[in-house]
Amino acid sequence: MTKVAMLGTGFIGDFYTYSLHGQRSRDRVQVIYSRDESRGKAFAAKHGIPKWTTSMHEAINDPGIEVVIIGLPNNLHLEAVKQAAQAKKAVFCTKPLGCNAREAREMLEAVEKAGVMHGYMEDLVYTPKTLKALQSVRGGAIGQVTWARSRETHPGPHSDWFWNREISGGGVLLDMGCHCIEIARSYIGKDIRPVEVVCWADTLVKPIDAEDNALGWVRYENGAIGQFEVSWSFRGGMDLRDEVMGTEGTLWVNNFLRTGFEMFTAGGKGGYVAEKAETEKGWIFPVGDEVVELGYTDMFTDLFRAYENKTQPRESFYDGYVVNEIMDACYKSAKSKKWEPVKLDIWRGAEKTGPIRVTRDYDSDHILVKEETMPDGRVKLILKNKKTGKITQTEVRK
Amino acid sequence: MTKVAMLGTGFIGDFYTYSLHGQRSRDRVQVIYSRDESRGKAFAAKHGIPKWTTSMHEAINDPGIEVVIIGLPNNLHLEAVKQAAQAKKAVFCTKPLGCNAREAREMLEAVEKAGVMHGYMEDLVYTPKTLKALQSVRGGAIGQVTWARSRETHPGPHSDWFWNREISGGGVLLDMGCHCIEIARSYIGKDIRPVEVVCWADTLVKPIDAEDNALGWVRYENGAIGQFEVSWSFRGGMDLRDEVMGTEGTLWVNNFLRTGFEMFTAGGKGGYVAEKAETEKGWIFPVGDEVVELGYTDMFTDLFRAYENKTQPRESFYDGYVVNEIMDACYKSAKSKKWEPVKLDIWRGAEKTGPIRVTRDYDSDHILVKEETMPDGRVKLILKNKKTGKITQTEVRK
Amino acid sequence: MTKVAMLGTGFIGDFYTYSLHGQRSRDRVQVIYSRDESRGKAFAAKHGIPKWTTSMHEAINDPGIEVVIIGLPNNLHLEAVKQAAQAKKAVFCTKPLGCNAREAREMLEAVEKAGVMHGYMEDLVYTPKTLKALQSVRGGAIGQVTWARSRETHPGPHSDWFWNREISGGGVLLDMGCHCIEIARSYIGKDIRPVEVVCWADTLVKPIDAEDNALGWVRYENGAIGQFEVSWSFRGGMDLRDEVMGTEGTLWVNNFLRTGFEMFTAGGKGGYVAEKAETEKGWIFPVGDEVVELGYTDMFTDLFRAYENKTQPRESFYDGYVVNEIMDACYKSAKSKKWEPVKLDIWRGAEKTGPIRVTRDYDSDHILVKEETMPDGRVKLILKNKKTGKITQTEVRK
Amino acid sequence: MTKVAMLGTGFIGDFYTYSLHGQRSRDRVQVIYSRDESRGKAFAAKHGIPKWTTSMHEAINDPGIEVVIIGLPNNLHLEAVKQAAQAKKAVFCTKPLGCNAREAREMLEAVEKAGVMHGYMEDLVYTPKTLKALQSVRGGAIGQVTWARSRETHPGPHSDWFWNREISGGGVLLDMGCHCIEIARSYIGKDIRPVEVVCWADTLVKPIDAEDNALGWVRYENGAIGQFEVSWSFRGGMDLRDEVMGTEGTLWVNNFLRTGFEMFTAGGKGGYVAEKAETEKGWIFPVGDEVVELGYTDMFTDLFRAYENKTQPRESFYDGYVVNEIMDACYKSAKSKKWEPVKLDIWRGAEKTGPIRVTRDYDSDHILVKEETMPDGRVKLILKNKKTGKITQTEVRK
Repeated sequence: MTKVAMLGTGFIGDFYTYSLHGQRSRDRVQVIYSRDESRGKAFAAKHGIPKWTTSMHEAINDPGIEVVIIGLPNNLHLEAVKQAAQAKKAVFCTKPLGCNAREAREMLEAVEKAGVMHGYMEDLVYTPKTLKALQSVRGGAIGQVTWARSRETHPGPHSDWFWNREISGGGVLLDMGCHCIEIARSYIGKDIRPVEVVCWADTLVKPIDAEDNALGWVRYENGAIGQFEVSWSFRGGMDLRDEVMGTEGTLWVNNFLRTGFEMFTAGGKGGYVAEKAETEKGWIFPVGDEVVELGYTDMFTDLFRAYENKTQPRESFYDGYVVNEIMDACYKSAKSKKWEPVKLDIWRGAEKTGPIRVTRDYDSDHILVKEETMPDGRVKLILKNKKTGKITQTEVRK
Repeated sequence: MTKVAMLGTGFIGDFYTYSLHGQRSRDRVQVIYSRDESRGKAFAAKHGIPKWTTSMHEAINDPGIEVVIIGLPNNLHLEAVKQAAQAKKAVFCTKPLGCNAREAREMLEAVEKAGVMHGYMEDLVYTPKTLKALQSVRGGAIGQVTWARSRETHPGPHSDWFWNREISGGGVLLDMGCHCIEIARSYIGKDIRPVEVVCWADTLVKPIDAEDNALGWVRYENGAIGQFEVSWSFRGGMDLRDEVMGTEGTLWVNNFLRTGFEMFTAGGKGGYVAEKAETEKGWIFPVGDEVVELGYTDMFTDLFRAYENKTQPRESFYDGYVVNEIMDACYKSAKSKKWEPVKLDIWRGAEKTGPIRVTRDYDSDHILVKEETMPDGRVKLILKNKKTGKITQTEVRK
Repeated sequence: MTKVAMLGTGFIGDFYTYSLHGQRSRDRVQVIYSRDESRGKAFAAKHGIPKWTTSMHEAINDPGIEVVIIGLPNNLHLEAVKQAAQAKKAVFCTKPLGCNAREAREMLEAVEKAGVMHGYMEDLVYTPKTLKALQSVRGGAIGQVTWARSRETHPGPHSDWFWNREISGGGVLLDMGCHCIEIARSYIGKDIRPVEVVCWADTLVKPIDAEDNALGWVRYENGAIGQFEVSWSFRGGMDLRDEVMGTEGTLWVNNFLRTGFEMFTAGGKGGYVAEKAETEKGWIFPVGDEVVELGYTDMFTDLFRAYENKTQPRESFYDGYVVNEIMDACYKSAKSKKWEPVKLDIWRGAEKTGPIRVTRDYDSDHILVKEETMPDGRVKLILKNKKTGKITQTEVRK
Repeated sequence: MTKVAMLGTGFIGDFYTYSLHGQRSRDRVQVIYSRDESRGKAFAAKHGIPKWTTSMHEAINDPGIEVVIIGLPNNLHLEAVKQAAQAKKAVFCTKPLGCNAREAREMLEAVEKAGVMHGYMEDLVYTPKTLKALQSVRGGAIGQVTWARSRETHPGPHSDWFWNREISGGGVLLDMGCHCIEIARSYIGKDIRPVEVVCWADTLVKPIDAEDNALGWVRYENGAIGQFEVSWSFRGGMDLRDEVMGTEGTLWVNNFLRTGFEMFTAGGKGGYVAEKAETEKGWIFPVGDEVVELGYTDMFTDLFRAYENKTQPRESFYDGYVVNEIMDACYKSAKSKKWEPVKLDIWRGAEKTGPIRVTRDYDSDHILVKEETMPDGRVKLILKNKKTGKITQTEVRK
């Protein structure tokens, strides 16, 4: 059993604790920290947690505690990480790591200096579908990845602090762009350097200062593009989809809104449907087990195993730092209206990655550009002459 | 930690052990039994199990063992259950419980007489989608269930013994009908008595004696129909789908072949796709985490919690017995070519369940039969006069 | 231009006329017949039809008219067909052909004796997807068909007469079973004799005398099963789906409720969604062009081309007669609670069709029963010894 | 009957002619022009066209011809349009209108000066789903459109000339971006001015000079974004999908790859599957009637009706010109790596369109930012104080 101090009693703290205590798990939250005593107490009662406290320091330094989990608003991550590092406790931090790259870097340096194990809780990289898809991609199933689109949109976050830029550090780009950026980066290859970004961000619908919609492209050194789409004004539930194009295939992952479970109800008595579902009547699309499908279960398995075995988890503070650097460049691009370089003072990936580009010889003189079966059964080939560069077509019957 | 003796090293023993040892689980297989020493040894090594034995008696009576899990061919269930009951160990048995109702009844009586906890490992009732769907149905989301279709089809089972009627006790009806019958029964209500069945079974494709395809309807006391469709000659993967109609709604569950994960691969290098996938090229439909999606994880959670808390699991040997009685009637019907009664000498559900039938008054004189919006915006009402029984139509503009 | 007399101004008359006058069509309705003058007049105005009449005889015998289309309640088909035959006009009749096989046979004999061209307007056999699917099946894409399921369910018909057995001749089985039976028959092969049926029919939900739900299996001479599922108590729209299993493949057709068009609307201002859609808010699933997707367009193309070219249309009165015979057997089985033979005094298909059953040799001594890739990459083969009949398994690495 | 001269015998000429002659159509191609006599002759024979010619001038000026349809490579559109205008024939031109905005403008001026009817054959705006979706959007079903994504990707075009920039004028951006741009523009509103664009274009996979992948955002005056994604290196078939977000809803249209028709074939004997399908084995996703689903049928209906009735078709040369201007800006942005203005010397839409932005009062003091049902049944409200701008949360039980 690993003993955990949970910091934060909000929506994410709830989800984390449900996951940690779910199924036949051997890990337990032993202390819960909340600024507000009544919320801490209620949370402890709900989840069967023995201790609650309004002192973050006390929670972190509780002698039985081995792992500190940070589920606090963005502007409190840095302070919590520093305290955990000082207490020499392993620390898992929710996303985004920092409000910006400067904070993220400070956290990374704090944990590395202290020599404590650290995990970046980017749950959406751990959804069962994503894990299997990444395995297929690494195994070569779709060839080299040329483009990865990750989309997260819903009608807006749960808690008031998200809507307050001083606490959240930004709008939907910071809140959800971090997910999409890391998902796309995982497909393209974490070893490949993100070079530059272009980003659009605007406040189209909500009466707030921060952006409620953002789009971005991250260009990687090999030419691949990571595309993100985030919105707080989507209607219809929570849309969590990824699409990946490779030179030899494609893959589509839908984590939430179309997963093989459909229900029509005339009466609207189905109870809670799913996170941000928006409707309880008509056609609804529930999710089987949300904590599994959103990646929490596999994330904690990876993090606790890494903690026990003293190995590297899939996502560490370094990944959180990279994502924050990309987002900083995005905010810059949204203002400058041009591509902006991703500044990565700390780079731990490959030094140089050549371009994608795959060619297949048709015969000694020609490259095969394309092959297609026509409605009448003919097979059309598009060939390029290697010497002249001329492109011609020919037909064969198969 | 609960210590388990696993009986059987086949496909299902593997799946069970993966589930039991998966994620952050606190339960462990401590002894593995196989008739074949080398297979037992290999299984133990693969799963990190400390002991292996070729003696079923030894495995069951190992002093540290609390729970015996039976993953053996159908014709060995009875003997294994008797031994576990004698050893006063809790016992979880794979599906179908018996080769027929007589065997199932003997097992039920053995465990009840011995007073040991017993679980029927009907995993497909525990898929995350099914659990959530059942909760919605019980909550009234689709009104009263009138029809539940459960379908399991694939290109045929993994092991040779399935194809041998002496060991398996039957064909696809026994092998997979048991799943579908219990799923439909769960939707309709386990408290409602299954009254009669009609079944078609034939050997259409495979060079075997037993049936390779079967269809059936189970009529329940309230008029609802549980429909099953099973096949060992389906091409295209494993099709696990349920559809439920209620008076106020409908629900569709796809557990395996269309779950929001789609991949195209030109090269066929994606590795293992999913159980019985049939193809590694072109469009394939992998499953995120199979042991979760097939219900193993939630099944073991329910069974071990029930064991620890001395409560009833969702599925006990009694349920296995009911399913075997229904299947016996199905085999009879397939021969007699007519509806056959379900003989249930032991019945623990409701004594009498009235018919479904829902009526809604339109006004004091009329029942509303139907309401529909037409292409041009008119709303058409079909009304029945309560006195005369005459049916008329009228139109309103909304 | 072919000139048409349309009999009937109900829902189906509307749909037929929209289809006939749609796109760049060269055929026109020239006379509309309705018992009710005001309805006939309104219909003529709406569709730009030059003449209307309350005399069926006048409509049919109008000198310019070449083709008579019957869109009347079931109990009027026979009379209309007789008059058209007498007038030596080509006649297309809506489904079901008769209220029973006796009527259908009388119609068939009337048109054949008169030597007029006749078409059975079974539109659902003509949906673009069904036409293409049938072509693939005939081309061998899924091998020999072993099972075809056709399902049509919705919340109940549009007009009062459907609910009145004297006019309709029956309930949902007659109204919609005719579609499903002919679809399944088309997949299995119209040349293969339907031998026997078992049918369940009940009045579960609606306050009516006729059945509101029915299920059936039609067994064909080669062993294949045509399965139909019809309901007037389905909630959630109109569900029109077919599934076909063959020895070499499978196919799934969804004609209406999931066709690649999904819309979420918070406000419910989307207007008419689709036939029997039930909801205008939340997630809705409109259909692109209903008259195309429901088969009307391709049906009329086939019928008018056959008329012009003096060839056979895909569906003639003979097909309508076969379907009526199958339904008569179904009604009998629903009462007798056993399989009932399909009486086909007129049979124009193949005289004798042998059983399905496909075997593939593995080597000279063994038949290959099954082949499957396991999670760890091994390929498992199930083999049957040709002499001993013994079934064994073996593994190969690919 | 309208008599047509078809210019071009390539893939698109074939598709156009099939559509024109399909079903019960009253329009006919009377002359076919091809530079190559044998191809023209073969085409005429195949489609039953009475005349063929190798002189474009002859075809256009044939006295019986009313409408000229241009299905030629991009670099020949201008010349053909000029000749048709001179001959005072109505002219329908395939997409893109010009190789660039200069050419498009010249064509627009030519037809307007000559006073001939002109249609821009942007078929994908006419798919049955798109037409119905546009109707819903105009009716207010999803509120104000904030974002429209249109995607067209496949493994590369059919004919050699596409791959040759001198003839085609560009790569995938010009070839398919024109579709996506006009689809998104149709959803957002053709009356709203496209203001600026940012575009990424690269040659990632194919051995060619032109771009084989491109992405772009078009920002409209009201803040809405039209997003396009085009690729000639997609694997898995032809992916034609649109997604639209509005302030009150969302809609998803899949025109080709997932339309409710799925087939698994072990043998690969299904024949032609669909345009650019890539595979004939395993799971395939045929399309019912391609000429309908791709919009050709409805496009010709609109164009010929407009011609007959002397009204405006949905898509005219002016629309083609706007699309070319947007694409010119895209090519510029792909080079400059920043947002580029859309130069529209001819603008016929609204003069000034205000920003989107929708607010809903909660009470006199607060704006409702968001409302959500939580897993435990509570309803959380996010409110903004109108005076202080402070955002707070509150909970209600429903």
